[in-house]
Amino acid sequence: MSASHLEALIDALRKLPGVGVKSAQRMAFHLLQHDRAGAQQLSRALDGAVMSVRHCARCHTFTDDEVCSICRDPARDVRQLCVVETPADQAALERTGSYRGLYYVLMGRISPLDGIGASALGAESLLARCEEDGLEEVILATSFTAEGEATAHVLSEGLRARGLKVTRLARGVPAGSELEYVDLSTIAHALVDRR
Amino acid sequence: MSASHLEALIDALRKLPGVGVKSAQRMAFHLLQHDRAGAQQLSRALDGAVMSVRHCARCHTFTDDEVCSICRDPARDVRQLCVVETPADQAALERTGSYRGLYYVLMGRISPLDGIGASALGAESLLARCEEDGLEEVILATSFTAEGEATAHVLSEGLRARGLKVTRLARGVPAGSELEYVDLSTIAHALVDRR
Repeated sequence: MSASHLEALIDALRKLPGVGVKSAQRMAFHLLQHDRAGAQQLSRALDGAVMSVRHCARCHTFTDDEVCSICRDPARDVRQLCVVETPADQAALERTGSYRGLYYVLMGRISPLDGIGASALGAESLLARCEEDGLEEVILATSFTAEGEATAHVLSEGLRARGLKVTRLARGVPAGSELEYVDLSTIAHALVDRR
Repeated sequence: MSASHLEALIDALRKLPGVGVKSAQRMAFHLLQHDRAGAQQLSRALDGAVMSVRHCARCHTFTDDEVCSICRDPARDVRQLCVVETPADQAALERTGSYRGLYYVLMGRISPLDGIGASALGAESLLARCEEDGLEEVILATSFTAEGEATAHVLSEGLRARGLKVTRLARGVPAGSELEYVDLSTIAHALVDRR
């Protein structure tokens, strides 16, 4: 196997998160043997995305435009702002079809071990955004992990100091789950927040 | 998330084997948020590989050249030919440092369910190659799966009919393993082939 272009491809595929040497080899062999058109499509898509995808000036999510389509949509409820960690979290909330307000995408979370504090996360920018007229409620939809909770805690202090109503997604037993397989901390939270 | 270029990238990443929607999203967000240089590198590597990587005229492995460096190497022993399924298998054998002969890479295996028989696999081309002067032994190093075994069986019949010595990699207990955790079929084979 004396293939410098092949080796360069395997190296480059390892830039993808969660892809080690063996996966990268398998991907490279698959593309070259069975799907060269797919490889070219991926190359073009990478170029296009690197050229065109930027952050929405209002909510910071990824978009091709100056302001994303949700922020531009006049039908969205400007009284509610939902704060999420990533565009993927935003997409999950959108798929539920049960939220009609606006978003603010942090593009990360507070993580002291990685040197990401409130300022690195752009908390100032969120607080500035929250001082706009008409906003009534900020829903903190960060993850229920230690880092997501810390992020929500820090943000809620700043937001409450500005007199805003701050809520958090409900914690509880996931739909479709059997109680005996749910972890104890979740059951304890569901018991406290029972309704 | 109204990002047509982002969606195109997520779609294209799903062409990679073993990558579903969630992984593709995670990869796209990672590249755009943290590693745009890596995305550009991957794009260039894909273009370079699609343009330049082809099959070695002698052994069919991937190479940038007409004939790969192993086939060109005058120090390799032309009396031995090792038949493997993929360039990854060839790479694994090379890493052992204990084989100095030549290779033939099938780029697949016989798989009746996928409609791949001996002719689709290019068995003719292997048999033609094996009629060259100086070849003494063909080592069948296909996988020890049902399909790999079937491939070895079909090839060995054709090769033996041409009067060649045909061997198969030894089956046995893997190095470093405790006997109680080795599957029974492996132990049975190791018992039969004891030395």
